[in-house]
Amino acid sequence: MEVANLKTLVVVAHPKIKESSTQQFLKETAKISESVTWLELNDVTLSEITRNRTLLHENQRIIFQFPLLWYSAPGILFEWLRITIQQDDETWLKCKELGIVVNIGQSEKSYRLGGSEKYSLSSLLSPLGALANRLGLTLIPYFVIEKFAYQTETAKKKLLIAYLQYLQLNQPINFKERQAWAIKFLKELTVNENNSMIRLVLDNFVEQADRLSELKTEIDLIKKVDDNDY
Amino acid sequence: MEVANLKTLVVVAHPKIKESSTQQFLKETAKISESVTWLELNDVTLSEITRNRTLLHENQRIIFQFPLLWYSAPGILFEWLRITIQQDDETWLKCKELGIVVNIGQSEKSYRLGGSEKYSLSSLLSPLGALANRLGLTLIPYFVIEKFAYQTETAKKKLLIAYLQYLQLNQPINFKERQAWAIKFLKELTVNENNSMIRLVLDNFVEQADRLSELKTEIDLIKKVDDNDY
Repeated sequence: MEVANLKTLVVVAHPKIKESSTQQFLKETAKISESVTWLELNDVTLSEITRNRTLLHENQRIIFQFPLLWYSAPGILFEWLRITIQQDDETWLKCKELGIVVNIGQSEKSYRLGGSEKYSLSSLLSPLGALANRLGLTLIPYFVIEKFAYQTETAKKKLLIAYLQYLQLNQPINFKERQAWAIKFLKELTVNENNSMIRLVLDNFVEQADRLSELKTEIDLIKKVDDNDY
Repeated sequence: MEVANLKTLVVVAHPKIKESSTQQFLKETAKISESVTWLELNDVTLSEITRNRTLLHENQRIIFQFPLLWYSAPGILFEWLRITIQQDDETWLKCKELGIVVNIGQSEKSYRLGGSEKYSLSSLLSPLGALANRLGLTLIPYFVIEKFAYQTETAKKKLLIAYLQYLQLNQPINFKERQAWAIKFLKELTVNENNSMIRLVLDNFVEQADRLSELKTEIDLIKKVDDNDY
């Protein structure tokens, strides 16, 4: 099975990117894929309107990546949108995909009716949903990173894989594509002789294969029960 | 009936305040009340942290006032919040009120399930709801200004009164307080000998008095029907 190399633009909005261990981790991870373009918003990149519009043109999946600050994407993202995309300019991004990578300092469970933060991430991020609606972008499910600083090494490894897949795989992601992606990824890494990375992916690959075979067993079981029922 | 002089801070976020006829109209209106402080966010005011925190301290009602840009408050408001209010600093604004004055280029009806913008203003503004929740601010209903440029002179006069009341009156606003506010307002204006302004308020006052007397008649009628029923 062939996996397409989706061209993805990651637009990172963070007031202090260099000081953010989460963003540095994601940056290193994104470097693994050649079809990902990384754009950090700051005073310089903010004003490069032509370049920013070209980047949006050239990529099929656009990712807005940021920490939730005061329950919103950081101000610089909205500044960038205001400068880069005219409000009356509605068709040029049509049919591209929009993804959101948001990191939060708490558990996502806090963001719900009755939770400490009261509002769901879906509600807090709705301005980006309305933007996608207006521009005809297809919104893919947001990708949330909870309490990065407290994550174990294993959790971070899983995050690395899941994040790369979020940037690259077709949505919705299915098992078959995940497998194909892992094999392709593995081959590319073997060429680059990056041993620790290969181990990491191998672990993930084996784990996914295990899940797949478990799932098959389960389905077979359900089928048997069904057969007995009728 | 005595109307308290509520101390109100209006924090205006607009990328081009001087070019905005809406903001200039609201600015002139706000000047009528001496207990309103006007703060326009720009590169200079953004960084005056001590002054901004003092202003927040000194006022009982805080208003965030902005046009909806890409379905959100403008970036500079979130920048200001990030710089002015520490995320771990949760109690110092407790029990103050938070109001939102938002102007939109379309009818508010577009902002609903099945409408062209799909998302409600309540959903799009939810980051400010979550902020109020975190800081212990009491959120008062948002105040929306639709298509200001297309409003008639009469509509603008009504807006002037409604906006002043939004900045100054206790929530929820009732008839009695509206009346008392109008009388007080009228007296103050008489002192200042501003004739056109007095006419404007008189019009509004008479209209409100009419509504009140209509309401009384209606209530009397309902009572009579009820008396006949039992």
